[in-house]
Amino acid sequence: MKALIGVIDRVAAQRGDMAFSVRLWNGERRTYGTGPEDVAVRLKDRRTALGLLANPSLRFGEAYVAGDIEVEGDLGALMELLLRVARGDLAPGLLHRGLAAVTRWARRNSPRRSRRHVAHHYDLGNDFFALWLGETMAYSCAYFRHPSDDLDTAQEQKFRHLCEKLRLEPGQTLLDVGCGWGGLAAHAAAHHGVNVVGITLSEAQKRHAEAMIAARGLGGQVEIRLADYRELRPRRPFDRIVSVGMFEHVGQALIPAYMAATARLLADGGVGVLHTIGRMAPAPIDPWIGTHVFPGAYFPSLGELAEAMGDRDLAIADVEAWRLHYALTLDRWSEAFEEHAPAVAGQYGERFVRMWRLYLRSSAAAFRVGNLTVWQIQFTRGENNNLPLTRDYLSAARTEAAGS
Amino acid sequence: MKALIGVIDRVAAQRGDMAFSVRLWNGERRTYGTGPEDVAVRLKDRRTALGLLANPSLRFGEAYVAGDIEVEGDLGALMELLLRVARGDLAPGLLHRGLAAVTRWARRNSPRRSRRHVAHHYDLGNDFFALWLGETMAYSCAYFRHPSDDLDTAQEQKFRHLCEKLRLEPGQTLLDVGCGWGGLAAHAAAHHGVNVVGITLSEAQKRHAEAMIAARGLGGQVEIRLADYRELRPRRPFDRIVSVGMFEHVGQALIPAYMAATARLLADGGVGVLHTIGRMAPAPIDPWIGTHVFPGAYFPSLGELAEAMGDRDLAIADVEAWRLHYALTLDRWSEAFEEHAPAVAGQYGERFVRMWRLYLRSSAAAFRVGNLTVWQIQFTRGENNNLPLTRDYLSAARTEAAGS
Repeated sequence: MKALIGVIDRVAAQRGDMAFSVRLWNGERRTYGTGPEDVAVRLKDRRTALGLLANPSLRFGEAYVAGDIEVEGDLGALMELLLRVARGDLAPGLLHRGLAAVTRWARRNSPRRSRRHVAHHYDLGNDFFALWLGETMAYSCAYFRHPSDDLDTAQEQKFRHLCEKLRLEPGQTLLDVGCGWGGLAAHAAAHHGVNVVGITLSEAQKRHAEAMIAARGLGGQVEIRLADYRELRPRRPFDRIVSVGMFEHVGQALIPAYMAATARLLADGGVGVLHTIGRMAPAPIDPWIGTHVFPGAYFPSLGELAEAMGDRDLAIADVEAWRLHYALTLDRWSEAFEEHAPAVAGQYGERFVRMWRLYLRSSAAAFRVGNLTVWQIQFTRGENNNLPLTRDYLSAARTEAAGS
Repeated sequence: MKALIGVIDRVAAQRGDMAFSVRLWNGERRTYGTGPEDVAVRLKDRRTALGLLANPSLRFGEAYVAGDIEVEGDLGALMELLLRVARGDLAPGLLHRGLAAVTRWARRNSPRRSRRHVAHHYDLGNDFFALWLGETMAYSCAYFRHPSDDLDTAQEQKFRHLCEKLRLEPGQTLLDVGCGWGGLAAHAAAHHGVNVVGITLSEAQKRHAEAMIAARGLGGQVEIRLADYRELRPRRPFDRIVSVGMFEHVGQALIPAYMAATARLLADGGVGVLHTIGRMAPAPIDPWIGTHVFPGAYFPSLGELAEAMGDRDLAIADVEAWRLHYALTLDRWSEAFEEHAPAVAGQYGERFVRMWRLYLRSSAAAFRVGNLTVWQIQFTRGENNNLPLTRDYLSAARTEAAGS
């Protein structure tokens, strides 16, 4: 009990101007800060408290989902505070790298395991994702030219930005590794006249993407395949390659294998963009997220990516960090999700709603405090002296788009 | 002799549409390609040929400087060809990392050794560098908005671009690590109202910078110190930190120490830009450059930089690769250098001229074939949620500048 109060006090010390209270199972209530309360936390029993002390990140998520911890008020602000406090306790990257090397080989994502992991998350049903992903069905960080942009606008801006970085020209071939529900593939085909192969491991995604592509009359230009990036054996390498929000599922052990596949699949001098959640320094995935939300996932540091790319002659031309863009994206998803929460609870149950609520809010917090970021990396395979000298083409594209 | 001819034939096989000839000491002449000759190479004696076979990169440079190899025509194109052929022979990054780890600790750049290395190159005399660096005296990669920009324009554009990335505000403190002849420090003080401390290890640079700063009436805002980055102990950390074209002299062994110093010298939430020649994958420096031009130098991979930055909570926000900008910069330097070559030969001798000619031309070639690049990295110390969401501010700055 004393240990628990000590931890709560330590968290409270970093609360800034936030006001919050914690109520324990014995009725004891501790309040911090003045003015209207931002967050009220309730712990149901001693067992929950002991679990929190033993394994804070995993047990907080599990107890929240089970209803053993209740949070009223601003869940996102609470998660930011908890992550800030936890940061100070994290083992530094250097120490982690040694530990991680021992365990990562035991958890390699074989093609079979990858299929199971993908099904765990993405085959929940297209209808569920359609409730809160918006019209584009893009399940990755959007690009906010202004913080007030709505979700669909920001997702379209992301597609445009990616296609500009890819330097697409009509008639070229483009491989989209982890194409999701097909939004980017369709955009590239429709706006840039390229021929796209999109690959996914989710049957639900493939069905949706194919129907959407047929409805938009792009069937002759876009093909969706149920395939693993390791198993793809095209007759000729692709002119362009893009991967958005899929690398998270590759796993630390297979970063070199992924880059080897990219080098094999991309033509000499070809251009690619890799867009993935990442970190500043190598660190294990949050245990609750890794256990319950994204089994097998790993968020790479830029160092890990750059090293593996260098070894395969994938030459980095540009890196843009979209950290706060993902926080804004997750805010939009949370808002839309909450609108439909009663309906979701009716179909999937209350625990499911609590899991998704925590996942969305805690992820936004992780981007805001800097635990996570997004690496958007433009690269070429080997020497390519034809990329524009400056990034003005990205602004020019924006201006044209704004004028159209 | 047979081995030599074999090597020449192998080089010639990759010549593309270049026409060139090689004349040996015994009068034998081999020609490759048709039409007017781009390059004619002459080898003076058998000893030179044997040296080339044993240690091509080192001996080519030494023999060229000594006049044992003579090159007529396009030296830059010849160097591009040789580097392309040599690339195929290079040990991959992975193998190199193992070998390098063994030797790098033996070659750590102590503060004393750093001073000697810097004097070797930078204390040659301000008058010498003034002949070909242009008005800004900036001895690092310029920023070409158009390939036809003249050198001074491109260097000013570099200063402006760096200052925009630093997000300078009047009254802030800025540390310029390796300030050279003071051009960037003066620009930041004059245009952004910041107080700058510039550090250099070269007495000649310090003298020049101080005179220039006094002449521009910036003495109250800019201080130049003869100091090593490791020895700096400011009362308060700086709001901003920048380093342009100095990191090359840090050396592989001290990358972590450099990042530790950066983290110590920069305020929490502060913004920095690190601009350095680098590589796609770790590799040793060219032996001729490392022996005769830049002793102690090392060109880091992005992976090495990102890993060391992550370990010190330096959060990367943006990476721009300026590879072809340095090729263009070196072209301009070469042109200006050749204009003054007779005068330089009169003062420093013919060998000196040949050394600098080869250094400038072969470096441009190394950037063109992709052996070298420039990493311009914008970062913050820890969490900073105040950087602009998009890069539009860089374009906006350009537009304003173009209109003024």
